[in-house]
Formats: sequence, structure tokens, C-alpha cells
Amino acid sequence: MKKALGIDVGGTKISYAIIDEKGDYVSKIKKVSTPKTLEALQETFKTIIQENEKDVDYIGFATAGAINLENTKVESSSPNLPDGYNTTEFTTFSKKPIYVENDANAAAWAEYKVGAAKGYDNNIMVTLGTGIGGGVIINGQMLRGKSGRAGEIGHIKIYPDKRRMCGCGNYDCWEAYGSGTGLGRSFKEEALKNPRSVATQGKKIDDLTTYDLIDGFKRNDELCVKVMDNWHNQIIMGMVSLNNIFDTEIFVISGGMGEFINCKTIEDELNKQTIVSPAKVVLATTGNNAGMLGSALLAIDKFKK
Amino acid sequence: MKKALGIDVGGTKISYAIIDEKGDYVSKIKKVSTPKTLEALQETFKTIIQENEKDVDYIGFATAGAINLENTKVESSSPNLPDGYNTTEFTTFSKKPIYVENDANAAAWAEYKVGAAKGYDNNIMVTLGTGIGGGVIINGQMLRGKSGRAGEIGHIKIYPDKRRMCGCGNYDCWEAYGSGTGLGRSFKEEALKNPRSVATQGKKIDDLTTYDLIDGFKRNDELCVKVMDNWHNQIIMGMVSLNNIFDTEIFVISGGMGEFINCKTIEDELNKQTIVSPAKVVLATTGNNAGMLGSALLAIDKFKK
Repeated sequence: MKKALGIDVGGTKISYAIIDEKGDYVSKIKKVSTPKTLEALQETFKTIIQENEKDVDYIGFATAGAINLENTKVESSSPNLPDGYNTTEFTTFSKKPIYVENDANAAAWAEYKVGAAKGYDNNIMVTLGTGIGGGVIINGQMLRGKSGRAGEIGHIKIYPDKRRMCGCGNYDCWEAYGSGTGLGRSFKEEALKNPRSVATQGKKIDDLTTYDLIDGFKRNDELCVKVMDNWHNQIIMGMVSLNNIFDTEIFVISGGMGEFINCKTIEDELNKQTIVSPAKVVLATTGNNAGMLGSALLAIDKFKK
Repeated sequence: MKKALGIDVGGTKISYAIIDEKGDYVSKIKKVSTPKTLEALQETFKTIIQENEKDVDYIGFATAGAINLENTKVESSSPNLPDGYNTTEFTTFSKKPIYVENDANAAAWAEYKVGAAKGYDNNIMVTLGTGIGGGVIINGQMLRGKSGRAGEIGHIKIYPDKRRMCGCGNYDCWEAYGSGTGLGRSFKEEALKNPRSVATQGKKIDDLTTYDLIDGFKRNDELCVKVMDNWHNQIIMGMVSLNNIFDTEIFVISGGMGEFINCKTIEDELNKQTIVSPAKVVLATTGNNAGMLGSALLAIDKFKK
């Protein structure tokens, strides 16, 4: 059975483990802090690889950023990684084949191969975290686009008339409303309109958090329920658009905000509003290490042939 | 050189011609009225095929409706075609191979093989007519989804909060605003808010047409300019979403409303708002017979191998 070293490069830590083609862990998961300079970061990659390459057939990287079509390099700069990261020549780190993929795509691949989307050759992962990310799989192939940048589903627009700036510098992306950050902004906006609402619990608007919102929602507070309902509609809206475009089999929801949605409700509403055939909606099952796991599985799937 | 009979089944007429693999017409284009009963319609298909099958290698149909994954049958009912149309067994009409595709997808294929998207393996056709239709081509393959219904790009949502019902029975699809019909509705809504505007030219609101809007726009009428600007933004919004999802190379605009947009302006604005790499925007070149042409080319491309 083939094995790969999966390496997930995050802004604060690098996680890695040896994984076999069934997705089982052959080694423990190890973590190191992400170095702050490019040189140190590349040295860390080399060290990790040197320690592990004799035990694996291939090496996979999951990393932030846009990846080139050949899956060998990062092409964009990443705010949480050192300047010049996109000059890194990953394939020089080992004589074993190395495959680089965007972390969101790698996570989607993990769900497809060993997680909640297993067996569904057409599936879409929607990651609801501080942003909205995701990956689209069509007939068992990752959607990568003309330059490797496809699948930016968080940047579907949900209003046409310039209401709220997104972190990407444009207006009204799905992520500006549907992410945890977006939900927090919606809560503050609504609270600002109703500063005496009990939802604020006497706090300054700026100090309100998503936790306050969820607390209020659980108490059935009118303002919090309204904000949460709007949020659900915004989440569903993006998924309806995606389903009408892709006619997919299943949506896999991951990310920290996933716990605040009811997949069954979302699935019912999605399929009421969709004009293609129905899709399932489920929570992801591979957890926080999905990117690392997916990077190893991608390397195995791509090089094994 | 391989040749195919392309047959485009429209609600009012059926067009057909023999086309070679370069997309050149080997016969004249012929047209007959679409019969109103299922039996007569199927007889017409048989007659057209019997007259032409000896001169071709394959037969292609372009038709309204969702097509099964095997490209042999229509799976949905079509409002403009006889009841039971979806029971038609197209492949029984000839011993030559028969390929059936949705008319919008077939038109997109024509643009890809011999039209404005020639040479671009990643492209999206956007048809701005009485509705919004289209087709998505990824790495030279038609996006068809799990059941053949993918590519319903007219049913991307552009508002999350239930403003305007779309012909599909759901709210706020792109088509409900961006199509010719949608633009007409926006004009009437705006005129209703300003019934004394010179844009109405003394007409009843219900009698206003898109022609009145365009006339007013050319005269620089304030209300008409506002409606047209909003429409442009709505068109761009949908294309930004599509580009961020697909990272495509080129958008091909077809349909009757195409003449009212400026591709260069749309392209500039699209690429300003997009977070993936830039895409081109051009008008379609294969004209009204794109569906017929595409159906023949699809049949050749699929069966020639």
C-alpha cells in the first residue's frame, strides 16, 4: 500500500503525518510553529521531509494561496506566511514526487476520499469559518480553472448594489455575510439600529461577539433570531446558486461555524429553491487535519497511476 | 471528414442541416414548424432523419429540457413542446449514432469549437435573452453535473431576501433581473415609482417596453440611465460570481440582449471585481443556429473517437 507524507502549512503551525492510501495514519501527527522568515520556513520543510521521506512514496503539501496548474508552486502571496513564500520550489526538497495543493481544495479531497463525501464523485465542500472557502469536485476531479484559482466560492456575490466591503476588497461577497466574521458584522449592524435591545446586554456594540449572538438566539431574543435567520438565508442562497450551477450530489459543510447550522433544514430549503435535482447537505467528518490528510491522499492519487 | 445531421428542436420550429467536423455547412439549413402533438413531432424527427441519414455519420439533437447523463433522452417536461416529449426514445430513430444535448449546452459547444471561444478550453457562454441560459466548459468538457442538469447559470441568486419571483418559481434568480424580461420589469418598477418621468412618454406603465427604455437611455433620460446602470451591475455581478467559481478564460455573450451591453466595459469591471485571474468577455459569433451547429459538432466529437 502506498504512503505519503502530508504537510499542512498554516499561518501559526505546520502539521504533518504519514498517511496511507486508505487515509489511515501510519505515524502520529506532529506540529511545529511556522517560522517567520522565508529561509527558516524552507529549512523547516527540508527537515520535516528529511526525517520522513524514507518511509513514504510521495509527499503532499496543503497550503494557503493559489497553486499553479502543475501543482508545484504557490503563485500568490499569503498574508500569514513570509514574503517571498511564492518563490518556494517545493519539488526541490526531495527526490520523491511532491504535490502541492491549496488547503481548501486538499480538505475537500480528504472529505471526498475518506470523509462525508466518500462515494460522491460530484461534491462541494463549503468551509464556514472566519471566511468562506471550499472546493468543488466534478466527476472525481478537482475544479482548478485556467490558472489553478478556481473554487473561490466565498466570493460569489450576494447583493448587486455595494453594501458591505469584503476582505478581498470587493463588495458583497458571500463570505462578507456568511462567514463567522460576516455574521458578527451583521449582529453589530443590527444592534446599532436597536442599541437598547436586550441582545446587547448592556455591552458596547463594538464588544459584542458571535457568542453573544448565539446566547441571545438560544434565549429566543428577537434581534438575535432575526440576525440568525438572515444568516441562514444567506448561507442557503449561496448553496442554491452553487447547486443550480453544478447539479452536485452533496454539500459537505466544514469550519467552526458549521456547528451553528442545521444541515437538515438547510438541505430542505436548498432543495425547495433549486431547479436541478436534489442534493444532500452533511457536516464534514475529517476534522481539523483535513488539509494534511487531503494533501497526502492527493499525492497518492496523482502519482500512483 | 466526418459529417453529422444537426437538428435543433425549438418551440415554434425545427431547424436542421448537415455539418462537417470543421463546422462548415454541407447542406442548406431547412426549417419546419414544430408539430403540436407528440406523435406528429416524433414522425417529423423520423422523416428528417430518413431524408438525411445516408449522407451523415452521426446525428445530433439540440433541445430544450434536461438531458440524461447518457445523452439519449430528455428527462424534464418542456412548456413549449408536447406532453410526453420526455418519453421520446431518440436513439430508435436511426441506426446511426444519435447524441442529444440541451440547446444551451449545444450552443456553448458551437462557440467553443468554431465560434468566439475557439481555442479556450475553459469558457462560459451566457445567453441574455428572454431568460438567462448558458453552458460551462471546463478543460474541454461540458459541465453536466450528477444528472445532466448542471449549468443553470440563470438561476444564480442575486438577492438573499425575496424580492422578485423568477419564472422558475423561486425568488431573485439572476434571470429575473438580468434577462430582457427582467430588465423590462425593472423599468416598469422604476417608472411606477416615478410615473411622471419623461421616460414613460405618457404611456401606461404596463405598455412600456424595453424599446422605450433603450430609447430613453439613448436620450440620456435619468430614469432610463439608472435602470440600465443597475442592469449592467446585475449582469456583472453574476459574471463575477461565475469567474470566482470557475477561473475561466473567456465569457461568450449571446442572445438578443447582447447588443445592449458593452463587452469591453463588462470585461474591465469584471476583472476589477474578480479575485482569480482575468477573463475575456466577447460576443458570440455563431448566431441563431448555434444550437443546431453545436448538436452536430457534439455528435461528431463524441462518436468520432
